[in-house]
Amino acid sequence: MTKIITISRQFGSGGRTIGKEVAKELGIPCYDSELIEKVAEDSGFAHEYIREHGEYAAQTHWLGRALNSGAGLRESNQDIIWNAQRKAVIEVSKKGPCVIVGRCADYILRHKADLLTVFIHASLEKREERIVQVYGESDEMPAKRLRDKDKRRASYYKFYTDIEWGLAKNYDLCLDSGKFGIDKCVEIIKSLYESKE
Amino acid sequence: MTKIITISRQFGSGGRTIGKEVAKELGIPCYDSELIEKVAEDSGFAHEYIREHGEYAAQTHWLGRALNSGAGLRESNQDIIWNAQRKAVIEVSKKGPCVIVGRCADYILRHKADLLTVFIHASLEKREERIVQVYGESDEMPAKRLRDKDKRRASYYKFYTDIEWGLAKNYDLCLDSGKFGIDKCVEIIKSLYESKE
Repeated sequence: MTKIITISRQFGSGGRTIGKEVAKELGIPCYDSELIEKVAEDSGFAHEYIREHGEYAAQTHWLGRALNSGAGLRESNQDIIWNAQRKAVIEVSKKGPCVIVGRCADYILRHKADLLTVFIHASLEKREERIVQVYGESDEMPAKRLRDKDKRRASYYKFYTDIEWGLAKNYDLCLDSGKFGIDKCVEIIKSLYESKE
Repeated sequence: MTKIITISRQFGSGGRTIGKEVAKELGIPCYDSELIEKVAEDSGFAHEYIREHGEYAAQTHWLGRALNSGAGLRESNQDIIWNAQRKAVIEVSKKGPCVIVGRCADYILRHKADLLTVFIHASLEKREERIVQVYGESDEMPAKRLRDKDKRRASYYKFYTDIEWGLAKNYDLCLDSGKFGIDKCVEIIKSLYESKE
């Protein structure tokens, strides 16, 4: 089976950067925004719409979802996006070894690839520092932005997978990027990936 | 501050073995059963009693605990053990760098030492294999032994620390020992310990 690294991450923990670095060092592709574009293509949804709602659909629109889906006669927009994302994740997994950041790829590929599943987190303070540095200031307090994003990710993940987000036992490896730094996290993931038979 | 590695672990995950190996390779002491003896000395409790109840006191005896403690006039046996363990953990932490397995050392020392906090887990299947191999057969099914032990550890930890056991964000590093093997886990912990400034 194809060796694939999946990275789940708290917002602001640098998980995406770590994924990209690992992929670069291993000489394999990293899917993230590329994947979103792929989904947009397949589903016919506007790129922007998916960027805004793709990951948070279930949580932000559960009422709309319920109303939309009526008596189960048709899929909600959110389910269409989920299915399109699911298909895209499976499609890229067939192309060969890669890194996939987010998108519930660990769950979607659990029986379909030889996975190294990683969860990246960091303290609130470290993540506050990082999001201001990476995404700039915003009207909202950094702590609130972090709390909201994390809650949405956890809720989205739970909704579609029925698995708790961020429980250590659900990942092969969990790392505090604030404690160890990006480079050390990259080194460990790479070493574990390469040691797989 | 003293550099100390704390290891929390699911029952049967090999966490204690990993702790002992790491300590051996780093040339520092590992505290586990030694610590229990220390506690027994300090508290005047029989060695055997602590071995049986030390880690699970809160969960197995909450009613006895309530009755025992009456109107708060005296400490329950469980609180006496907890306090004796707490004192012992702090005492050994002052002796210099070491590995401490279990005993809520991550919580007890969180402001008192320069910690590398580790959580070791493995799949049910891998742990079933391991406990039969290490502890031998028993009348109880391996799966039930694992479930009971884990529940007690989680409950004990939660009772005294008010923190959820096994949440990735509460540890610097979490590893699936069933996936990577004991030796690779030892290597990673050692590497992270040595890379700390």
